[in-house]
Amino acid sequence: MTTFEALYVPAPLREAVSDQAWLVAMLEAERAVARATGAPVPDEVLRPEDHDIAALSEEGRAHATPVVPLARALRARAPAAHGPATSQDILDTAAMLVARNARSLVLAELDGASAAAAALAEAHRSTVMAGRTLLQQARPTTFGLRAAAWLVALIEARRRLVDARLPAQLGGPAGTMDPELTARFASELGLEVPTLPWHADRGPVADLAGALDAVGAACGKVGLDVVLLAQSEVGEVSEAESGGSSSMPHKQNPAAAVLARACARLVHANASLLTAGDHELDRAAGAWQAEWPALSAALAFAGGSAAAARRSLEGLQVHADRMAENAHDLGGDVGAAKALVDRALARYREQQ
Amino acid sequence: MTTFEALYVPAPLREAVSDQAWLVAMLEAERAVARATGAPVPDEVLRPEDHDIAALSEEGRAHATPVVPLARALRARAPAAHGPATSQDILDTAAMLVARNARSLVLAELDGASAAAAALAEAHRSTVMAGRTLLQQARPTTFGLRAAAWLVALIEARRRLVDARLPAQLGGPAGTMDPELTARFASELGLEVPTLPWHADRGPVADLAGALDAVGAACGKVGLDVVLLAQSEVGEVSEAESGGSSSMPHKQNPAAAVLARACARLVHANASLLTAGDHELDRAAGAWQAEWPALSAALAFAGGSAAAARRSLEGLQVHADRMAENAHDLGGDVGAAKALVDRALARYREQQ
Amino acid sequence: MTTFEALYVPAPLREAVSDQAWLVAMLEAERAVARATGAPVPDEVLRPEDHDIAALSEEGRAHATPVVPLARALRARAPAAHGPATSQDILDTAAMLVARNARSLVLAELDGASAAAAALAEAHRSTVMAGRTLLQQARPTTFGLRAAAWLVALIEARRRLVDARLPAQLGGPAGTMDPELTARFASELGLEVPTLPWHADRGPVADLAGALDAVGAACGKVGLDVVLLAQSEVGEVSEAESGGSSSMPHKQNPAAAVLARACARLVHANASLLTAGDHELDRAAGAWQAEWPALSAALAFAGGSAAAARRSLEGLQVHADRMAENAHDLGGDVGAAKALVDRALARYREQQ
Amino acid sequence: MTTFEALYVPAPLREAVSDQAWLVAMLEAERAVARATGAPVPDEVLRPEDHDIAALSEEGRAHATPVVPLARALRARAPAAHGPATSQDILDTAAMLVARNARSLVLAELDGASAAAAALAEAHRSTVMAGRTLLQQARPTTFGLRAAAWLVALIEARRRLVDARLPAQLGGPAGTMDPELTARFASELGLEVPTLPWHADRGPVADLAGALDAVGAACGKVGLDVVLLAQSEVGEVSEAESGGSSSMPHKQNPAAAVLARACARLVHANASLLTAGDHELDRAAGAWQAEWPALSAALAFAGGSAAAARRSLEGLQVHADRMAENAHDLGGDVGAAKALVDRALARYREQQ
Repeated sequence: MTTFEALYVPAPLREAVSDQAWLVAMLEAERAVARATGAPVPDEVLRPEDHDIAALSEEGRAHATPVVPLARALRARAPAAHGPATSQDILDTAAMLVARNARSLVLAELDGASAAAAALAEAHRSTVMAGRTLLQQARPTTFGLRAAAWLVALIEARRRLVDARLPAQLGGPAGTMDPELTARFASELGLEVPTLPWHADRGPVADLAGALDAVGAACGKVGLDVVLLAQSEVGEVSEAESGGSSSMPHKQNPAAAVLARACARLVHANASLLTAGDHELDRAAGAWQAEWPALSAALAFAGGSAAAARRSLEGLQVHADRMAENAHDLGGDVGAAKALVDRALARYREQQ
Repeated sequence: MTTFEALYVPAPLREAVSDQAWLVAMLEAERAVARATGAPVPDEVLRPEDHDIAALSEEGRAHATPVVPLARALRARAPAAHGPATSQDILDTAAMLVARNARSLVLAELDGASAAAAALAEAHRSTVMAGRTLLQQARPTTFGLRAAAWLVALIEARRRLVDARLPAQLGGPAGTMDPELTARFASELGLEVPTLPWHADRGPVADLAGALDAVGAACGKVGLDVVLLAQSEVGEVSEAESGGSSSMPHKQNPAAAVLARACARLVHANASLLTAGDHELDRAAGAWQAEWPALSAALAFAGGSAAAARRSLEGLQVHADRMAENAHDLGGDVGAAKALVDRALARYREQQ
Repeated sequence: MTTFEALYVPAPLREAVSDQAWLVAMLEAERAVARATGAPVPDEVLRPEDHDIAALSEEGRAHATPVVPLARALRARAPAAHGPATSQDILDTAAMLVARNARSLVLAELDGASAAAAALAEAHRSTVMAGRTLLQQARPTTFGLRAAAWLVALIEARRRLVDARLPAQLGGPAGTMDPELTARFASELGLEVPTLPWHADRGPVADLAGALDAVGAACGKVGLDVVLLAQSEVGEVSEAESGGSSSMPHKQNPAAAVLARACARLVHANASLLTAGDHELDRAAGAWQAEWPALSAALAFAGGSAAAARRSLEGLQVHADRMAENAHDLGGDVGAAKALVDRALARYREQQ
Repeated sequence: MTTFEALYVPAPLREAVSDQAWLVAMLEAERAVARATGAPVPDEVLRPEDHDIAALSEEGRAHATPVVPLARALRARAPAAHGPATSQDILDTAAMLVARNARSLVLAELDGASAAAAALAEAHRSTVMAGRTLLQQARPTTFGLRAAAWLVALIEARRRLVDARLPAQLGGPAGTMDPELTARFASELGLEVPTLPWHADRGPVADLAGALDAVGAACGKVGLDVVLLAQSEVGEVSEAESGGSSSMPHKQNPAAAVLARACARLVHANASLLTAGDHELDRAAGAWQAEWPALSAALAFAGGSAAAARRSLEGLQVHADRMAENAHDLGGDVGAAKALVDRALARYREQQ
């Protein structure tokens, strides 16, 4: 249903948040339930190819979750399947597994963007350009410092995303599961052990959403600045593979920067839903069921925004002569720009 | 990429906002350009089966729009294709065509929900129940009046959705297209003629998004109230096909009401993006490109929310005895509840 | 608590949404209750100067509404006061009265902005400038057409705001009030008669919020374009009273345009709350009580955004020579720009 | 302009985010500039009582910032005042000082809420109640475990809020300030030293906003659950000082819980603005100027929500008999509820 998804999101990330990926993750969660409880559920019962996620979604409509028909199908073949789990245990755990896989892809794009920003900061530490406040020329700065500012924001976003905890969920129908069982379950999957079941306490989801929003904001900022510096009248940067226009083939559109911004807006909208709370008592009647599409979208578009920022930065053409020309009347005093670039690069090296 | 979409959205509506539907709509827009300009573009150039929307999205990434590769493909076969249009003309017009088709499906679900609400209002105009404010019992009301309140909100949302204008877009690269040509183009498609090209003035999109949000709010309200009245301790309604639980087969979950609420939240998140403005000069560099997935999602989830509210209401079991019991201590004075139900039903009949 | 409010909002509008204005409106609603029911409540009981809204807010905390202590104070002096009303009747009606007053001020600012946009469209119908898409020069247009596009968006926003219904609320504790009494009450106040009490069906609030958001979007768009055209490197417009900088007195900041954008963001955030629904049964336990500050803010910032757009446009310096220079390489074919300006101006004259 | 602010926000917090508090903070920032640069600016020039923040806001409208008139006034009395700072340095630093003071008040309310939740968890570790999923009775749990879940969410929100970095800002007009000077400046104020100036990289603001949103979500969840458990038909808890109704004096409204939810919604709306990014180049033309009211509101309502949750929990009446009665048919197996409560309490003690 996401329109033109290949336009925004790299293929591996599309797969990582696809319905098939959710199905695989749900089955992985079911397998871990069986292992943690020692229940006899043969691996062949848990093969994704035996289940049809579209059909499960369709059947799941009557239950407001695809796990009810899934658990029924599993139990038909292995009565011990699903064990003491409740459907939310499977779905929340699957969400964290999907998030873990997707996160690693988002981080790879972010790292590419950071490396490109760092290279620009390094290469242009002495490239004077106009500082612009309220889009008016203010005082001179360097393009290296602009790139360093992007870099620091990308690093910060990375840190938040890495720090987001991804806990397992195994609380059972009323959230009263023995924590030792939950710990075994979490360990099967390599997920964190939560203090308590978090069926209706969505801190982990909200933290993750906030981190993805930070990724979008950092990448969208790169996109915004590139778009502004690439304006015809400014002409200080251009993208290597500038996009064409259907009616004006000569035009040089900073297409990657534009997509970084578009994706950032889409992350923000979905993150806003994921941080809105309002989960009733021990399982929400609506707020929880709204999370799945929003989480997939937030992950995908965060990665889309990072990939686009990376593409924009990796191929960025910097027109230093135009920068010098534009900044001509401002004098050449760039203050401590060099020292600041060094600070940012030192920070970058530390976190690697 | 939308997770579990069959869980939320009826099949016809999923198709109506699918990438294939967007492709068909884009080709319809291209055909109307050819007809309005009298350009020789044979119909067989414009067959959806000759184009692959996934590939166009992929190629379109370099241009931040799938129309650049589409127009190129069309011109390769018919040099006059695409004519004086700009890519945004095709996409905005396609968006309105997609919206028109999807809207008729949303309205059908809304009408079903309204009919069900009207029937409940009629049937239960004398069924006394507790009025509840801040979720505390207050004074008596009737279930008919509760249903009548749903009905009025559904009618209002319908009116807003019907009133949303769906204008054609044919402004050309800088929005300076001859309005007579635009009028011919609009007439080919049965869309409204805009006062001016609206490339960066997104009133039409925002109005539509607001109307879809109103649909979500009205249907989500039905869901919320059903969930509350269906609580174990309240027990005043239940859904005919109450959903089960993977761990507690005896449970009677109001699954449709829950999904109505989930969809409403998803509409709201996407509508918020579509009303946020910030479109630069003659075509936005990011805000516009973010609209396509958000518009599809807003349409789909609005319909999902209406379909779920309809399903919930059509099969709603009303436990009048339980209502009477719960309201026992409040006395039986329901004021003008009957007259109010009549007002609502009269209003309903008028708009039909 | 709104920081630096005089920076954003004109004084009359600040007063129109002040706590004092809410108090006056609540007392007006109480007076109309008395009149509609024929209850003996002397006018001197309802004098604003006898009540302290800060104290009522403080006392109201224990009840989650300031109307409980207000009604108590009124009844101490006139036992018939407050009559059959419930606290939400008073507050919702007061909200509509506050909205009505504030709306007229917002409309006045909007009208000023529209008049200024119309004058620019008229004066510059032949002033050639570069059309810019994705912030790249595309094809020529005229500044008159840019101004005409602002004008049409301002007119549309005006229409939505004027169309927003402002119904009275008099439902009593459970929303079962005799509609004839409600009609008398509404007529006392010159407000619309609702089909049903709308205690938990917030269509009227959401419609109003959507209209205010449209005002913000239209005015924020003016701000965005002015900021972009005023860039040092573009230099095509400047504000008459450009703002200075604390560190660079020579700088010419388009301060009004900047504030129009800031206000638009603040409207959008508050409108998003007001359209989010989730009002339980016959009176919400949280969603309703969140509306008051959000409604005041949405009204005030919508007006702030209109006032700022107006200020920006009324004093806009248009540098036609610079426009010509920037557009030099694009040729001079501005298509049907003149005809389009005429369409917009005709539309403007019609709605006056 | 915030309507009925005493209803929502405790008096000390209202003061902490008042315009007067912002003025004091701006002057503190100016003092630190003088000290860090060794400029001769006598303390008496920086007395809040000599400046009128309402007038500065009014005058500031022409500059889109109150710092321009403030700096002018200071320089008139001490020419060295304001030194190498730019207006954003003063305002951003003031924002962090305001946030620091307000945060300590929010934390105090949060700590009160946590202590109350911990006491309830302890006292009710064996109080059986129905677990409720999708608002249907599911399996038994204990009220102690419900309170423990609130506690863990409050602790998590606290951690995020404490972790939010509050950096000084001293970048000068183009963000090229010597980092050693910035470090001296930060040290004068006890704020963090940022890697780079963050004029247009709003990570610190977004992180803080996200943390405040987490506070709102945790406290709003308490409110939601209390409202649900206090329903007439559930009757398992009530607030000590339940609010009355203007029309039904016998009613027992959980007013504090309601306000916790209302405040949470208001935090969320403002946080959404503060995390939206889109800050152009070296200082934003709109997005930055929108932050001040949103930040004050997010801080105030986060504290309001914590204060209300605290009030609700501190006086919570737990009706264990009613809990037992409601849960009667579910059997008494509460699984590992006790062990889970212990985990939560251990976690609580650790963080103290």
